Amino acid sequence: MSQHFADRLLAGISEKKAPVCVGFDPVVDRLPPAIRESYGLNQDLNGLLADESTWENVGEAFFEFGRGVIGAVSEQVPSIKINIAFFEPFHESGLRAYDRLIKEAISAGLIVIGDVKRADIGHTTTQYALAHLGTPNQPANLPTPHAVTVNPYFGIDGIKPFIDIARERNRGLFALVQTSNESANEVQGLTLSDGTLVCQQVARLVESWANDSSLIGLSGYSCIGAVVSPRDLESTKLIRNIMPSCLFLVPGFGAQGRTADEVAECFKPDGTGAIVNASRSVIYAFDNDRYRKSDDVQWQDCVHRACTDLIESLRRVVTI
Amino acid sequence: MSQHFADRLLAGISEKKAPVCVGFDPVVDRLPPAIRESYGLNQDLNGLLADESTWENVGEAFFEFGRGVIGAVSEQVPSIKINIAFFEPFHESGLRAYDRLIKEAISAGLIVIGDVKRADIGHTTTQYALAHLGTPNQPANLPTPHAVTVNPYFGIDGIKPFIDIARERNRGLFALVQTSNESANEVQGLTLSDGTLVCQQVARLVESWANDSSLIGLSGYSCIGAVVSPRDLESTKLIRNIMPSCLFLVPGFGAQGRTADEVAECFKPDGTGAIVNASRSVIYAFDNDRYRKSDDVQWQDCVHRACTDLIESLRRVVTI
Repeated sequence: MSQHFADRLLAGISEKKAPVCVGFDPVVDRLPPAIRESYGLNQDLNGLLADESTWENVGEAFFEFGRGVIGAVSEQVPSIKINIAFFEPFHESGLRAYDRLIKEAISAGLIVIGDVKRADIGHTTTQYALAHLGTPNQPANLPTPHAVTVNPYFGIDGIKPFIDIARERNRGLFALVQTSNESANEVQGLTLSDGTLVCQQVARLVESWANDSSLIGLSGYSCIGAVVSPRDLESTKLIRNIMPSCLFLVPGFGAQGRTADEVAECFKPDGTGAIVNASRSVIYAFDNDRYRKSDDVQWQDCVHRACTDLIESLRRVVTI
Repeated sequence: MSQHFADRLLAGISEKKAPVCVGFDPVVDRLPPAIRESYGLNQDLNGLLADESTWENVGEAFFEFGRGVIGAVSEQVPSIKINIAFFEPFHESGLRAYDRLIKEAISAGLIVIGDVKRADIGHTTTQYALAHLGTPNQPANLPTPHAVTVNPYFGIDGIKPFIDIARERNRGLFALVQTSNESANEVQGLTLSDGTLVCQQVARLVESWANDSSLIGLSGYSCIGAVVSPRDLESTKLIRNIMPSCLFLVPGFGAQGRTADEVAECFKPDGTGAIVNASRSVIYAFDNDRYRKSDDVQWQDCVHRACTDLIESLRRVVTI
């Protein structure tokens, strides 16, 4: 990949007219029934986790599910986000499926975000960065994601190794700034002595790392972006203003309840600046009566149509 | 494991008279030369990372190194901390070595801390918790660590699934409060409107989660502990007072430069309350002229002696 990460992501958004990323969060008990059945996974999750012999099947089933999701959405969206957490309970088999899906998504022309949320002290983060963004001479048959998510609690030391590889290999990263979970404010929402919030100060920090000429692409955006969930219109507007150099990866849309108007605040007036992620509302659309109108409907068609609806709801509020 | 995690850890510390945890952070270019040689790893790291065929060898070499370290220290210390970051660059092979070492360390009677520093939104953290602390019916031949490290940036949602499994399975967790890296204060050291620091507020939060009768053992300590690196005597004393229910996992001793007097502040006056981790200064002691007085000295002897020195330096400042 010789193009700057932000430029490439923006080109993909523009080409598909869809500032959308589909999040792949597979769990066994929500797999499409046909896939569960063909891999003998009609047990409860605890049974599966306790039986190493079924891990192999779970890895294969996740791969098949993921390949189906990629096939269903790759013409519609520029990007897929694969969350490694859902693969880790199945140890080697899970990790193999994660790696294979990265490859599959790249082959399908998607920009792949590895949702790993890693960070540690510097020399340890170097290992995470090598694992998840690759080495300068990474061979093409062993692909790593184009970008990853990282956790800012360590400050710059915990992120710099990712930045160095991103610069060198035209990769990207998204630092957590404001997350979408209910208790996010317990730490991120603490009020600082100057009246601002912790997440706003983290936003300033991340912008200061991102706004470095060696990291900025032709689009004016940095390869360092931010995970920003819109908690309310005011705070989202504020964070958008604090971070002009950063693309936002916006979680919380769909199953987590954020509306199109709320996520719209993550974009700049020119319609750039963000990519909205939806996971469960898209990949499990076959469980939604709105899409599964009869048992004859293929699960991939439901995924495809949920993705179309998502894109259209965003086109109504964002100028693309 | 039917004993409460904190009780078990304290019993181990007391039995060995060593509030010490050896941290296992393997990197290829620092492996004992004999191990590098026998696995054909005399290349630079980038070459290894770029060549899938050598990953298998790296995994095996890390396992052999880890088994040697376990053999060298298991009579001296109650606990080993294995950092998964160092295994992830080698994908499946790395993860297999990580899993095998957990098993090996448990067989050697050690309490195993999986240093994974995970956190995400709640339903995703559930997956991390299942992966790293196991399920209620986890079979004995598929062991998980006795405890893990977690990142507090999401607040309670990002940690609760770990707590639930810890309660159910007598496991433990250590939440990051004050880390040992240089830039830790960029976020952790921000001053809040009440004049306290972010890390102190995180300390209060973690104490509020830990101080729950369903989580407290006979020792009075909770299965929720904290990672606290002593930055200076005053701040360490303050955090120790804020968190009476929590055992501290103390990084930064040895290679990272914290002194015995500094780490001593992490203990309560009765000598309980903390376990000090040292990684590189112990596991790479064979690179230190102080231990490798001649080429005839076995690398494991150097590791053993460095561990002895570490324990003795702590016994001088902590009443065990």
